Amino acid sequence: MDDHELAEAVERGRAIQDRFEALGYARLVDAVAGYPRGSVVLPDGSVVVGYPSIGRLQSLAAGLRRHYSGPFWAEEKIDGFNVRIFRYADTLYALSRGGFVCPFSTDRLPDLLDPAIFDAEPDIVLCAEIAGPDNPYLEGHPPQVTEDVALFVFDMMYRGTSEFLSQDEKMARIERYGLPSTRIFGRYLPEDVEPLRKLILQLDAERSEGLVFKGEGDAGRAKYVTGWSNVADIELCSDQLLELPPGYFTKRLLRLALFAREHGRLADPELERSLGHAFMSGLTHAVERSQTMGRVGVQFRCRFRERRNAGHFMRHVRATGGHRIRLAENTPRREGEYWVLEFERVLERMTGTLATALAGASQFD
Amino acid sequence: MDDHELAEAVERGRAIQDRFEALGYARLVDAVAGYPRGSVVLPDGSVVVGYPSIGRLQSLAAGLRRHYSGPFWAEEKIDGFNVRIFRYADTLYALSRGGFVCPFSTDRLPDLLDPAIFDAEPDIVLCAEIAGPDNPYLEGHPPQVTEDVALFVFDMMYRGTSEFLSQDEKMARIERYGLPSTRIFGRYLPEDVEPLRKLILQLDAERSEGLVFKGEGDAGRAKYVTGWSNVADIELCSDQLLELPPGYFTKRLLRLALFAREHGRLADPELERSLGHAFMSGLTHAVERSQTMGRVGVQFRCRFRERRNAGHFMRHVRATGGHRIRLAENTPRREGEYWVLEFERVLERMTGTLATALAGASQFD
Repeated sequence: MDDHELAEAVERGRAIQDRFEALGYARLVDAVAGYPRGSVVLPDGSVVVGYPSIGRLQSLAAGLRRHYSGPFWAEEKIDGFNVRIFRYADTLYALSRGGFVCPFSTDRLPDLLDPAIFDAEPDIVLCAEIAGPDNPYLEGHPPQVTEDVALFVFDMMYRGTSEFLSQDEKMARIERYGLPSTRIFGRYLPEDVEPLRKLILQLDAERSEGLVFKGEGDAGRAKYVTGWSNVADIELCSDQLLELPPGYFTKRLLRLALFAREHGRLADPELERSLGHAFMSGLTHAVERSQTMGRVGVQFRCRFRERRNAGHFMRHVRATGGHRIRLAENTPRREGEYWVLEFERVLERMTGTLATALAGASQFD
Repeated sequence: MDDHELAEAVERGRAIQDRFEALGYARLVDAVAGYPRGSVVLPDGSVVVGYPSIGRLQSLAAGLRRHYSGPFWAEEKIDGFNVRIFRYADTLYALSRGGFVCPFSTDRLPDLLDPAIFDAEPDIVLCAEIAGPDNPYLEGHPPQVTEDVALFVFDMMYRGTSEFLSQDEKMARIERYGLPSTRIFGRYLPEDVEPLRKLILQLDAERSEGLVFKGEGDAGRAKYVTGWSNVADIELCSDQLLELPPGYFTKRLLRLALFAREHGRLADPELERSLGHAFMSGLTHAVERSQTMGRVGVQFRCRFRERRNAGHFMRHVRATGGHRIRLAENTPRREGEYWVLEFERVLERMTGTLATALAGASQFD
């Protein structure tokens, strides 16, 4: 993107100038010159293009029939957060979906992948999910990451283009550079509903989030999640019942019902108990926290290699989460090679509503 | 209310002139001259005052402590709809909460109560709940009404005043005229938390909706529902997940968690399964209806003594529910002494969302 275009976008509020240590950059908060929201313009004018959102199928058989007429790949969907990793002036950075340099992900990149690919292809951008219990954004994590965080590459592109490398090109690089990647289950055709049904039920039993389908050629992408992932999301977030948009819960309930009906899990007592438990465990925990602590909040813990990156992260979180963030005492603190950061996001509506209810106030419907 | 006041209220849109057969009346859609919304002005200027809304306690112990310093009565809360019954020009009428003459309730009054009290006290207004499986408004009903509908008187007042008769005056009339009434469990003091806890747990086991507390003297009213009633409401309405305001579900989930925590039902697997079942049964039924019928709807059935009242009722429902109402074929039809009306309220958002999902469309979050 040339300087003039960028200056005009900044002027119109469609791009915002930002900085992370030595790197000055602009992130697009709206589409500009054909680049989507979340794209980032680097000092040399090159662009790390925003990662597109992927439509979600709610019916496996009908969805595949409608979206694909030719071959597509099925890969595992990982319950983490999306980053785009690039190298600029000899430094690796990780961008969040919105186009911020993420201080946490950037700090941890040396632990998470071998950067050799960037020596061979300096303009490459790796699209990856970072997931695990010690992440600063999400409460959920995939079953295969039991501590800290791990990284799963699932797409590659070059700066300046929104086109991804083909599946073959991507798989060749994953192998050549030993990159950690999402599981690739294989190449399917639209009529392969039965093998894919078996696969999604196996992933459901493994407590995986689900599948992403990637069409060959011009065919697009789509995702399809397990029934279990809906229950897990509700369980993790039921203590945030009043903070999240109501659609958070209603969409997951509908998806779960559609999954149960399509895959023969109707009136399954174990599924019903899990769903009831998902709501009750978070909510009764919230009531308990309200009674014992006087507030309801979500705890986060994550590790940094560099203390200054923990500082960058906390400034970023405070700028976006404001006074709802409470740092733990004595944080960040040294633990082995790392700096451990612990903080809480206070749930203000849950805190207020429960305090009022427990004080004996009456409510008018 | 004098003619001038009423004319001005109508002029300002705070009252609406309406008619039910021979009775012309005005219903207040806003407070007028000290009378609340839902009050009805009769041709002689007398007013049937609107029934007040009652605050809901979310904590039994703290709520009683906060709301009462002296004695109060505990009565059963019935899962039905509120009517006010009065006599005018030798005819009995039943008003809905909003101040409409309800054609269904008015039609059925001769079946539901002995009108002798109106001979003795022509100005009396009986406040009652009408409840049962064959009602045209609600899906739920109390366990003790297994067919048709029944009526439960719980308050009395005279026209022109919003003051209720005292508990003693009310109980004397219920007994003298053999009126059907809600169960009155007795007179309690704010320190009687333990007996009331036992009572609410007994009602929970009986699948009753809960309690209404009525303070003596100046002390006010409050209601407190069983944990079960929240699960029952969710079960009855989960097929309306996208039609009801999201607060419908979140409020009940929170109340259930508060009930579970206060009354020691934490991590109760039976409660969890019931809650999960409550969501799943309605939703999977909705998916099934979408697949088989192409639409999702709620079925109602009720009986009328007079065919013309069924007509009045359907005109009223169409005026408020519009094209979402589908009459069954051959309705109303004669069954014994009654005219049976059957209709369906179509749930447009559920119908549309499920049709799209089942057709294989993808959804962007």
